[in-house]
Amino acid sequence: MTAKGAGAVPKGTTQAAATGGGQPTIISIAERAGVSIASVSRVLNGIGARPATVDKVERAAAELGYVPNAVARSLKDGRTRQLTFAMPDIGNPVYVAMVRAIQSVAKAAGYRLLLHSTDAVAEDELAVLHSLGDRTSDGLILCPIRITDAHVDALRSASGPVVVIGSLPSGVPVDSVRADSVEGVALAVRHLYETGRRRIAFVNGPADTVPGHKRGEGFRKALADCGLVYDPELVVHTDFGIESGAAAAESLLDLKPDAVFGANDQLALGAARALHARGLRIPEDVAVAGMDDSVLAQAGWPPLTSVDLGSTERGRRAAELLLQRLDTPEAPGSTSENPTPRTTTAPPRLVVRASTGRAASDS
Amino acid sequence: MTAKGAGAVPKGTTQAAATGGGQPTIISIAERAGVSIASVSRVLNGIGARPATVDKVERAAAELGYVPNAVARSLKDGRTRQLTFAMPDIGNPVYVAMVRAIQSVAKAAGYRLLLHSTDAVAEDELAVLHSLGDRTSDGLILCPIRITDAHVDALRSASGPVVVIGSLPSGVPVDSVRADSVEGVALAVRHLYETGRRRIAFVNGPADTVPGHKRGEGFRKALADCGLVYDPELVVHTDFGIESGAAAAESLLDLKPDAVFGANDQLALGAARALHARGLRIPEDVAVAGMDDSVLAQAGWPPLTSVDLGSTERGRRAAELLLQRLDTPEAPGSTSENPTPRTTTAPPRLVVRASTGRAASDS
Repeated sequence: MTAKGAGAVPKGTTQAAATGGGQPTIISIAERAGVSIASVSRVLNGIGARPATVDKVERAAAELGYVPNAVARSLKDGRTRQLTFAMPDIGNPVYVAMVRAIQSVAKAAGYRLLLHSTDAVAEDELAVLHSLGDRTSDGLILCPIRITDAHVDALRSASGPVVVIGSLPSGVPVDSVRADSVEGVALAVRHLYETGRRRIAFVNGPADTVPGHKRGEGFRKALADCGLVYDPELVVHTDFGIESGAAAAESLLDLKPDAVFGANDQLALGAARALHARGLRIPEDVAVAGMDDSVLAQAGWPPLTSVDLGSTERGRRAAELLLQRLDTPEAPGSTSENPTPRTTTAPPRLVVRASTGRAASDS
Repeated sequence: MTAKGAGAVPKGTTQAAATGGGQPTIISIAERAGVSIASVSRVLNGIGARPATVDKVERAAAELGYVPNAVARSLKDGRTRQLTFAMPDIGNPVYVAMVRAIQSVAKAAGYRLLLHSTDAVAEDELAVLHSLGDRTSDGLILCPIRITDAHVDALRSASGPVVVIGSLPSGVPVDSVRADSVEGVALAVRHLYETGRRRIAFVNGPADTVPGHKRGEGFRKALADCGLVYDPELVVHTDFGIESGAAAAESLLDLKPDAVFGANDQLALGAARALHARGLRIPEDVAVAGMDDSVLAQAGWPPLTSVDLGSTERGRRAAELLLQRLDTPEAPGSTSENPTPRTTTAPPRLVVRASTGRAASDS
């Protein structure tokens, strides 16, 4: 199970040739072929050389067990054929959906995918951005939870193409793919309103995250659009998670909501758990809706109505934008600091399942 | 957002030097430094050279915008500092758990993780095995659904270290990490028996997969150990998935089982859905248990009793085995075709939640 080529350096080669991990070097190939090192470099790099020289070099390379490898090819054309996707948490089904979509696009284009789970730690995200200079991958798709000033600086000075999945401050010269969570929340609230719900509670995520802030804003707006009064008592903030959702929803039930909307599926499933535990029927007594339409939505009972914010679509578009940047880099010599950034928005979609039903409007 | 170094080749360099993606070459650095190409190679590869030469080369490299990069470092030490994990489906929470564990170990050791989703296609798995020869990564963790003769051949001739998560035929010289699904099934069946269940139905996955076969075998054995008679009518095979599980369980309910055991969480959650739809209470009328203890188990109502087959543990051990192989490769020149393969088994663990309760035994 040793790497091919280990032990393949023949006796009699120089110390220099034998150093460096067992692969024959440009020097040992030149010695064997009896040509100059420059000639070997030209041949192995596919730059012109006399046919006789090409012959000699190729024969010597083969005899020495030289394996043209991905690393060497990469050094030659400056491309690694690798893309990096950095996301907060591979355990969250939303990011899994993105990974699947990105991998599918990358694979079709002949790229491998490097994964990086940042645990939503800003320093880790910044380190990934800086590591683009290492040429480990040709480009980066970054999905941050918060955008700090340090992120903006790192994005401005990134040494390779980056696509951000998320919302960027204006003026940052980087492509981005956004979800429209304000419209997504509106779809859910409107659906609850149209099925007869009037006291809609909201279990939101942390207020200091971009998703938490946006969804909170969307919720107020959506209620107003439906002519419903915003009651701050019916809104709680908690961590994104089933247990947190259950505890937060439990604290709301004495206020007798006729619907609970969760800012993601975990929060909505937590709310469902709290309702079941109280003996309340879903959706007859209280409707429940979530957000993200993750694999969890279908695992719940009743199956959960949820807003698909287009995780798959966002992953797909981000990968496509990145590949376009790789296919059409700035002209060599161009030092444009501000390539026109492109922003696309994945439209949300409401997936209605049994957890909202039509019970309240029928009664 | 152009790659650093693009446009960095100064005027006056030769055609050869300017070719190859914008990075200065060994030739252009030699010209600039006024030293031999061999000297540049020695300096950049960290092989001894006179201090004055080192100085000249380093200055020329800096002036030409030469960026020591991951690719170059890799070419130098023969290591990519990358590991590959190839699994059937990143959408399955079991593999997500493995990815998290592998990434955590890899990251701590300074390795990046390449992901490869094979869609359980054997050709794709074989291609990943063969691609080890490309030196894209230093080693591979492979999680196949079936092991064919072609897998065995490819594993025997792999050109880098491989660890398989799964069961291998004996004699294959590759490290592996197994789950003990027979004992896992026994844990669930014994728990159902001890809580008073006597007619235990089994919704299994496809019989022609390793997991489906092993779990079926485990189920028969576990019933026998509890002194229960195996009734083939109470066993169905279907695809691993919630919808399939619901349809399969529905077909069993007229046989009045007092428990349904699913070969994974999706099948168990599907069974729960079929029970809810019939108005049967869980666990009062019918207990439900699943397998894998994935994130889905907690999303169900009632939360699902499930057997943890150690996905996280298997991922962790596989990564550790692979890193050990990388740290202690065969001695150069050794052509041992049969390194002693190591096999470890992650013990299963039963996680009891409300879906099994103790109702039947209490009544």
